Amino acid sequence: MHPTLIVGSVAFDTLHIGGECHSKVLGGAATYASIAATHFGPVQLVGVVGHDFPDTATRLLRDRGADLAGLELADGETFHWEGRYSEDLSSRETLRTDLNVFADFRPKIPASFKATPYVMLGNIDPVLQLQVLDQIAQPKLVLADTMNLWIDIRRPELVELCKRVDLLVLNDEEARQLTGELNLVRAAKALHALGPRTVIIKKGEHGALLLQGEDVFSLPGLPLSSVADPTGAGDTFAGALMGFIAPANDLSAPSLRKAVVYGSVLASFCVEGISTSRIASVTPSEVHARFEHFKRLTSF
Amino acid sequence: MHPTLIVGSVAFDTLHIGGECHSKVLGGAATYASIAATHFGPVQLVGVVGHDFPDTATRLLRDRGADLAGLELADGETFHWEGRYSEDLSSRETLRTDLNVFADFRPKIPASFKATPYVMLGNIDPVLQLQVLDQIAQPKLVLADTMNLWIDIRRPELVELCKRVDLLVLNDEEARQLTGELNLVRAAKALHALGPRTVIIKKGEHGALLLQGEDVFSLPGLPLSSVADPTGAGDTFAGALMGFIAPANDLSAPSLRKAVVYGSVLASFCVEGISTSRIASVTPSEVHARFEHFKRLTSF
Repeated sequence: MHPTLIVGSVAFDTLHIGGECHSKVLGGAATYASIAATHFGPVQLVGVVGHDFPDTATRLLRDRGADLAGLELADGETFHWEGRYSEDLSSRETLRTDLNVFADFRPKIPASFKATPYVMLGNIDPVLQLQVLDQIAQPKLVLADTMNLWIDIRRPELVELCKRVDLLVLNDEEARQLTGELNLVRAAKALHALGPRTVIIKKGEHGALLLQGEDVFSLPGLPLSSVADPTGAGDTFAGALMGFIAPANDLSAPSLRKAVVYGSVLASFCVEGISTSRIASVTPSEVHARFEHFKRLTSF
Repeated sequence: MHPTLIVGSVAFDTLHIGGECHSKVLGGAATYASIAATHFGPVQLVGVVGHDFPDTATRLLRDRGADLAGLELADGETFHWEGRYSEDLSSRETLRTDLNVFADFRPKIPASFKATPYVMLGNIDPVLQLQVLDQIAQPKLVLADTMNLWIDIRRPELVELCKRVDLLVLNDEEARQLTGELNLVRAAKALHALGPRTVIIKKGEHGALLLQGEDVFSLPGLPLSSVADPTGAGDTFAGALMGFIAPANDLSAPSLRKAVVYGSVLASFCVEGISTSRIASVTPSEVHARFEHFKRLTSF
């Protein structure tokens, strides 16, 4: 079974949400993505943590099937982000960002990971994402996530990266920002032109769009009666999506559609718990039941 | 074949959109809804126009299968609305509203319409919507549309109306405004509690939600590469939805899901043309092809 190589941030988050403060809970794009991907197959995690990263967290990741040979232990403290959500959870403000050991992160892919064909480049500096690709022998499918910050300050490197990416994942605002196209269909066309043959546009509660040329798949979000914490939902989506594709080893359009649904299944669980609590505890039968729930939700 | 009775505004719109001005084009909720519904079966239209309402418009409606026995010709000018859309078409401002003959509109249901079981109450004052229901012998399915204005100034009458409505159609903002619930699932529960056993929440480009207790159907919007004019899309959606249900005479959950898809099919055509131009000219095979397009868009 092919593992999924996941590169990105491993962090602590301090979350002010729903009138409560959750101090230094587990966070980071690679953490969410890895936990989500382990629901489908093995994961190889590449990231960096400091001496304060707890054994309980490494044990959680290892027990779920993540190979931590690429999780560097650096001298210093783990990346820490602190943010406050608005009452309706539709927006958040950053209160504090301590990059700590993440400031000098230069991803080193262990020899045992270099032949892995399925690579997820979590949302980090495109310069680092390119360095990761330079270390992979022959990737079969490369997924890259990004964010508004890199579109602002690393546009040339991001455009360079796009030439080497098969599957670009970004949200609707980022798609508009990167292409200058307000219309999402035209934005996706412009993104295809940059390189990625597959573009996935995340629309938060409104679901996700999968675009491969003329073939378009649209999945609505699962209507949830309560949301505990939206943090990491996008990373969880991308991680589960790649996690589903790698062991299936199937890049057909129907397989990618299913991958988007499984991404949305795990993302819907993600927001039901604080931090990674729900995606770390959800059972295979709950995952299956929610996939069927998406079927009922959308079929006519 | 059961006709659909549609009550609402018939109007002229002056639209400032995409750098152009379209002066006194055909508009009004009942106009859009009626044209959309005639794609599926006969329509009985109840509304009011002035002496300036052109024969070309009445002929268009009649030729499409709308019975205009309930279209009152009053002494004065036809309702006229003028508005300007933002560049990305996501919002609009009202420049002018001349109610004209619509100011004194008291819907009179012709005797030949009083036994019609399928009734669509377009977005007008809830006081008038209640007066319409008082004139219908034994409605089998009543759909009501509404808007923020009535939630603001006619809340008691709207709540009264809800007790007599089977299918309430409103947009996400209105659902939140009427119930005070930010979360749409909880808002829909609160709307059910007001009376309607079926609630449809329109989300514009993000599609529509159909909620019947625990049964939820979500249809994404059709990604369109260009939009000419969003005016009347919501009325078109509701009109096509009722227009599909009436001749099918089938209120089952699968039938209602299909009705939502056909509503979205016609709404997607609506925005492709200025005013009613596209929904008045689209062919049955185009409608069928777009239904299949929604199937491809959403299936996995």
